[in-house]
Amino acid sequence: MCGTDGCLIKSSSIPCATPENGPRDTSMTIVLDHGDPTMYESYWRKIENKCDITFNGYELLSYFANSKSLCWFLESKLEEEIKRLHNVVENAIVDDHYIIVGTGSSQLMQAALYALSPTDEPEPISVVSAAPFYSSYPEVTDFVRSGLHKWAGDARTFEKDGPYIEFITSPNNPDGVIREPVVNGDQGKLIYDLAYYWPQYTAITVPANHDVMLFTISKCTGHAGSRIGWALVKDKEVARKMTKFMEISTIGVSKEAQLRAARILEVISDSCLDPTLENFFEYTQSLMTDRWQRLRQVVMANDIFVLPKYPLQYCFFIKDFRESHPAFAWLICKGSEEEDCEKLLKGHKIQTRSGRKFGSDSRNVRISMLSRDEDFNIFLQRLMAIQRPTSDN
Amino acid sequence: MCGTDGCLIKSSSIPCATPENGPRDTSMTIVLDHGDPTMYESYWRKIENKCDITFNGYELLSYFANSKSLCWFLESKLEEEIKRLHNVVENAIVDDHYIIVGTGSSQLMQAALYALSPTDEPEPISVVSAAPFYSSYPEVTDFVRSGLHKWAGDARTFEKDGPYIEFITSPNNPDGVIREPVVNGDQGKLIYDLAYYWPQYTAITVPANHDVMLFTISKCTGHAGSRIGWALVKDKEVARKMTKFMEISTIGVSKEAQLRAARILEVISDSCLDPTLENFFEYTQSLMTDRWQRLRQVVMANDIFVLPKYPLQYCFFIKDFRESHPAFAWLICKGSEEEDCEKLLKGHKIQTRSGRKFGSDSRNVRISMLSRDEDFNIFLQRLMAIQRPTSDN
Repeated sequence: MCGTDGCLIKSSSIPCATPENGPRDTSMTIVLDHGDPTMYESYWRKIENKCDITFNGYELLSYFANSKSLCWFLESKLEEEIKRLHNVVENAIVDDHYIIVGTGSSQLMQAALYALSPTDEPEPISVVSAAPFYSSYPEVTDFVRSGLHKWAGDARTFEKDGPYIEFITSPNNPDGVIREPVVNGDQGKLIYDLAYYWPQYTAITVPANHDVMLFTISKCTGHAGSRIGWALVKDKEVARKMTKFMEISTIGVSKEAQLRAARILEVISDSCLDPTLENFFEYTQSLMTDRWQRLRQVVMANDIFVLPKYPLQYCFFIKDFRESHPAFAWLICKGSEEEDCEKLLKGHKIQTRSGRKFGSDSRNVRISMLSRDEDFNIFLQRLMAIQRPTSDN
Repeated sequence: MCGTDGCLIKSSSIPCATPENGPRDTSMTIVLDHGDPTMYESYWRKIENKCDITFNGYELLSYFANSKSLCWFLESKLEEEIKRLHNVVENAIVDDHYIIVGTGSSQLMQAALYALSPTDEPEPISVVSAAPFYSSYPEVTDFVRSGLHKWAGDARTFEKDGPYIEFITSPNNPDGVIREPVVNGDQGKLIYDLAYYWPQYTAITVPANHDVMLFTISKCTGHAGSRIGWALVKDKEVARKMTKFMEISTIGVSKEAQLRAARILEVISDSCLDPTLENFFEYTQSLMTDRWQRLRQVVMANDIFVLPKYPLQYCFFIKDFRESHPAFAWLICKGSEEEDCEKLLKGHKIQTRSGRKFGSDSRNVRISMLSRDEDFNIFLQRLMAIQRPTSDN
């Protein structure tokens, strides 16, 4: 997210080429630092009013959605559509899991840390993730200097005995790799961040079935502005503590956002089941495939950068073998360790996020693949124009 | 909020008489523990479709609302309607203040604590509020055991030198009293929680003009389910840090909720300015006046309880003298210090919140005055039936 790295604070000096700024000034820096998922807009425009939802003034007054449910602020309709979509896509087991809704999955990360941290220990529990890890994990863990949990860095170099929490992001943000736990200690508590485990990004090889799994509508459907995420949680006590976190933190989650999210998920499930409708995941997968092909061509042509390769895997959703097309390109500048890829691209008016922020090095950058078409096209043109410095220089 | 004190966790054993449970079973306990503001529903039903708002599928995809604004996730329309309403009601100065939107005002309390806490001190800053104080302040301050700030209890007994943060809730939750700062130290940072500074509850005597002021749509309009609050903040650096908190915590605030809130505030301002419309605040003030009169009659009749008295004050909004009609009744059981008023009322199937949770004693309880009519009527009937034990007992 751009904002979390202070991009927005700098926005008066570096104008962001974001759509709400009005007609595009193509001289502006293209912001691909954050993963703003605006590329699916064309799908939502095509289906016209099928997703419309109207709220009148007397609805949704109460804090409560369902006081009989463990997660008392979760709208039943959203719960139903979350379960339905996971069953349609077969990317996660929902039976025997509690559903906790959050204001985006960021809040649920904090709720999960709160729920999994021991309360009877003198020291905060260590929180780790294998590098390159999502750049927000350190900040989310430490921003209020919690005495419950503390960021302890790269899971691969973590050697402390005792309890710890490991974030497993699969497919991984930033590099799109499918991941397993790394520490494998006796007292590990695992949070699976599955924001990108959807068919437009990767093969659905197995329904995920873990103790704590996080999802977000932002990366699934593109509706980042709604701020809706959900956790699937096996253990009742963990689910209860996560709900408690949500109560104290925000007394629940916007009902308008929940009900609109429910409608959107419903339309997507329908599109997968009704052959007369345009399948959302086939449509968006085809957009991602096209973008990745064009990016790989440019990268191959200028011979300055490298992109990761992804294995072919059988996807049970599309019933065929396929490559991954991650939401981010994890671009590597060829050259020495001192190479600063973020700086190089910034010089060409492409704002990306340095590998350093992901516990990696400055040769890498993370680039959003989810921008609007116009931004993506300008990005490719600018990337194409970058030349290897000649030996004279 | 009921949930924050664990009521919901107990809801399987004590069924809550909340509307989503279906047809009322009048034998159930009436839950007046939390301030669920459902009583304004009749106003919103009367205005029919004037508040309707429709979202289609392709809107509100981006994380961003206005990347040029300091609070980059704040919808311009909401900003405009917040300013307009404060100008119409004249309850707060908005000029020279930044507006930060939050997922309810609870999140903004945490954002304000984050922004006002020093980062270069070895010890967390003390956070205080004069008893009886809002029962969530201790929990919100300490729930993740922050190293930035720590709850230090009743502001009246706070004697530590150095920096501190004081919450000033005015009108106060739970007791409806108009408040000023209590500690008055050199290094105090003040957060004004003005959730109840609206004409249905109290006289608008002066436009509030403080460094940090918190408001919420929940108590102003009754739309608690939307989870929209806002802060008016004078200092740019504080506003920036609060925005940063919101970025890390939830990457902004639901756009659906913001835009619906904007529509609701717009309708309220219109209702105040257009004499052909039913003025929202006159309507809701008349509901509150009626409830308080009826409650005072019952309390006077059974001679077991006492209610606070509020002075007549000139209200610049209604242009007349008036009493306060707070959102909560702060009921005192006559008798010794050992009197447990919460227990007494629970025995009569009225669930309230004990004074102990507000830093006060068990003779007091806080009772929501904002329930639906049916609940309020049952509450009065049950209260009326309570008899002083005879000396034989």
